Amino acid sequence: MTPEEFRAAGHELIDWIADRRATVEQRRVRPELEPGDLIAALPAEPPTEPESAAAVLADLDSIVAPGVLEVQHPMHYGWFPANASLSSILGDIASSGLSSLGISWESSPALTEVEEVVVDWLRQLTGLPAEWKGVIQDTASTTCLVAMLAARERATDHAQTSAGLVGESAPLCVYTTTEAHSSVRKAALLAGVGADHIRLVDIDRYTRDMEPDHLRALIAADVDAGHNPMAIVASLGSTGTTAFDPIGEIVQIAANHGVWVHADAAMAGAAMVLPEQRALFAGIEGADSIAWNPHKWFGTILDCSLMYVRDPDHLIRVMSTNPSYLRSTAGGEATQYRDWGIPLGRRFRSLKLWYQLRIDGIDAIRARLRRDLENASWFADQIAARPGWEVVAPVRLQTVCLRHRPDDLVAPDRGEALDTHTLDWVRTINTSGEAFLSPSVLDDRWMARVSIGVEGTERAHLVRLIELLDAAVAPSA
Amino acid sequence: MTPEEFRAAGHELIDWIADRRATVEQRRVRPELEPGDLIAALPAEPPTEPESAAAVLADLDSIVAPGVLEVQHPMHYGWFPANASLSSILGDIASSGLSSLGISWESSPALTEVEEVVVDWLRQLTGLPAEWKGVIQDTASTTCLVAMLAARERATDHAQTSAGLVGESAPLCVYTTTEAHSSVRKAALLAGVGADHIRLVDIDRYTRDMEPDHLRALIAADVDAGHNPMAIVASLGSTGTTAFDPIGEIVQIAANHGVWVHADAAMAGAAMVLPEQRALFAGIEGADSIAWNPHKWFGTILDCSLMYVRDPDHLIRVMSTNPSYLRSTAGGEATQYRDWGIPLGRRFRSLKLWYQLRIDGIDAIRARLRRDLENASWFADQIAARPGWEVVAPVRLQTVCLRHRPDDLVAPDRGEALDTHTLDWVRTINTSGEAFLSPSVLDDRWMARVSIGVEGTERAHLVRLIELLDAAVAPSA
Repeated sequence: MTPEEFRAAGHELIDWIADRRATVEQRRVRPELEPGDLIAALPAEPPTEPESAAAVLADLDSIVAPGVLEVQHPMHYGWFPANASLSSILGDIASSGLSSLGISWESSPALTEVEEVVVDWLRQLTGLPAEWKGVIQDTASTTCLVAMLAARERATDHAQTSAGLVGESAPLCVYTTTEAHSSVRKAALLAGVGADHIRLVDIDRYTRDMEPDHLRALIAADVDAGHNPMAIVASLGSTGTTAFDPIGEIVQIAANHGVWVHADAAMAGAAMVLPEQRALFAGIEGADSIAWNPHKWFGTILDCSLMYVRDPDHLIRVMSTNPSYLRSTAGGEATQYRDWGIPLGRRFRSLKLWYQLRIDGIDAIRARLRRDLENASWFADQIAARPGWEVVAPVRLQTVCLRHRPDDLVAPDRGEALDTHTLDWVRTINTSGEAFLSPSVLDDRWMARVSIGVEGTERAHLVRLIELLDAAVAPSA
Repeated sequence: MTPEEFRAAGHELIDWIADRRATVEQRRVRPELEPGDLIAALPAEPPTEPESAAAVLADLDSIVAPGVLEVQHPMHYGWFPANASLSSILGDIASSGLSSLGISWESSPALTEVEEVVVDWLRQLTGLPAEWKGVIQDTASTTCLVAMLAARERATDHAQTSAGLVGESAPLCVYTTTEAHSSVRKAALLAGVGADHIRLVDIDRYTRDMEPDHLRALIAADVDAGHNPMAIVASLGSTGTTAFDPIGEIVQIAANHGVWVHADAAMAGAAMVLPEQRALFAGIEGADSIAWNPHKWFGTILDCSLMYVRDPDHLIRVMSTNPSYLRSTAGGEATQYRDWGIPLGRRFRSLKLWYQLRIDGIDAIRARLRRDLENASWFADQIAARPGWEVVAPVRLQTVCLRHRPDDLVAPDRGEALDTHTLDWVRTINTSGEAFLSPSVLDDRWMARVSIGVEGTERAHLVRLIELLDAAVAPSA
């Protein structure tokens, strides 16, 4: 494809993207598809003849695009806000267009240094001390794995440089709660920790925050048993209900035993840019690693997960491809981000943040986050005041967890019928295409999560959601 | 940013990208920068006021873009061809524009199913049997780590589900050669294998391919010692010299001991689309996992690394977030690519391949690869025939390894002076900005790699490179 062919096709594609965003509300949120439908609609064999960009765009429009769930739709309340601000999309396009190769400082000084600058901008905006250094990973799952690997090597005095984990005598233990994201367990297991040694710390029955006294007891018991407490993963805004483990107390407990603390603030970390919300994160500066994803509520297009560490030299020693294990980041040397994570080759991801912060401005981003917090609070009040409806978890930020419990499903022995009812009305809404919610399990019973925070979601959309909720549970529905 | 603002800014950005590509030869390959120069050129504090997209684009053009090494330049011969075909860039832009969320089949059926279709197209084009199933990872480094984790769990009968690696009694061993990419050692260490148990198998002195007899002996010795042979990583086209470990013999040796075989064809895998080159890969279908990166020579913009496995159920069991560890891919269930790798959230990467294959067509891609092979062969002949120059490794595909050894540096005791000479002339060329080569170490002495295969590199560029080589070693240089 020549630059001139690209220019023509690129202009058409930009128009398509702009048109699509402008009309997102006219489409269904959830596609009407069964597994395999799209595979059947696409050729099983590779194309043999070149085709025009227009033909590919036509298929993108008619076959591919109708097959995505429209997470930019203002009536999308599923999982988490997966905002892709148009400013950050421009940055993503700039990254593609630069076509740079991020394998070392030498291969793309700009890729390295713009990232250093922009992650430090975000550090300042979230109020982290200057000693924290950051890197952009793809997702918080990867960040959690990298944190567990760093924790493992600290707990074993760098076992990887000699006999490896099999040479250790004390089992490595990881502490988290039932509320932690599934990637936490996955990361611990992949790091070589056995399922037998993942400790689930008790949680507060109402807030679902980690109970620090139980954490203290579990660590003490493991120490007594000759085990090796490796890491605590604190959820700062859990996926299910936005629970906040008490990070201030956790880092103090960890300090007594030299346990690594990873703060998983993947979704909620965006709230750290709001000074009035920082109390939720009080003490986070005592952790060892932090993950938060601008590619969620903050509005940067996926993938863009920030990982901050307090001791980059340790991380580099663990992740380095330099077999001497002796290199230091001190002095005037260049940063080599390949030694901060798993992949060698890296995209120019910082441009997404650079574009977004410069074009949108932090004030507008903050105003949007505050709007969402107000909307969530208002919505929760509306639900709580509505007969038959319950808000079933504290609304810490922008997620409202709810159930509809009509009179005939109040008795304790009606739990299964309540589950059926919940899944029924959620399905009614989701299959309508008008809105989308994620059903989720709380205390072994289904509930629905309304995760508010899509860029386009205004109060009127929540008013409409309440109408849909009422209709979905109406006896005739 | 509104859709109309995005439309206007997007058109400008597309023009900038097209112009930049059309004029790539007018720029230096290597930027003139020292570490920290760009950091100093950018504001240390985050922006407070919103700016226009035009202002950001102006900075992209004047500050950022001059800070990248131009790997799309036809005179770039460093590391490996990091081609970003304009067709694949269109696909990348389409992915950004769709702004879809890849966390499950449900969150974006199209993201899942287009990937299934396109990776199967590539399977067909590379001649792999239909039992091989694929997924797109970010890089071959990640693919290697995922392969090592899968190998580890097979070798330990899923130790992660019980006591973890510390509960194992037999050290896990990994077999590879000095020629393997640095990510291989990194992946083994991160998977929990100790450095003491990474076995470096002897290589053929000239071809630098793994010696299967020594592999056999090393595994037998480890078995005798009560160790646990976990994985063999075969380099199919090594980074340094494009060595090809004899994969057919390796898989037979592995089969006797149930050892996992990972075939790392990150760069050279593109050659599998050429039927006449498949002899180099004969036997690969007996491996357990394969990595090859369309984001290198093949021409798909980074990041796009293909991972194929013969037993996806095993991979899913290891990587699944499903705590039951019992789910199967059998039946009509949807593919959940989160269970094929580390990140939960995934970009719509398959669109890059979809666009490239449809717009460019496989015939044009094959013709380009064949052109590069002919150019490499021609270039090697020219070098070998030139007084003072040596081709120091066999030219298996498109990489030519060379040294200049004038008469006064021929004696064996002149090795250090030869190193100085090599680094000097490579630096002369690289700092000129006219071309870029990677110096690399072979048998403890520096050499230069000329990695041919940038989309725009034609015979005339190699003629010019020879002029530059001659000038760089001329006594007056």
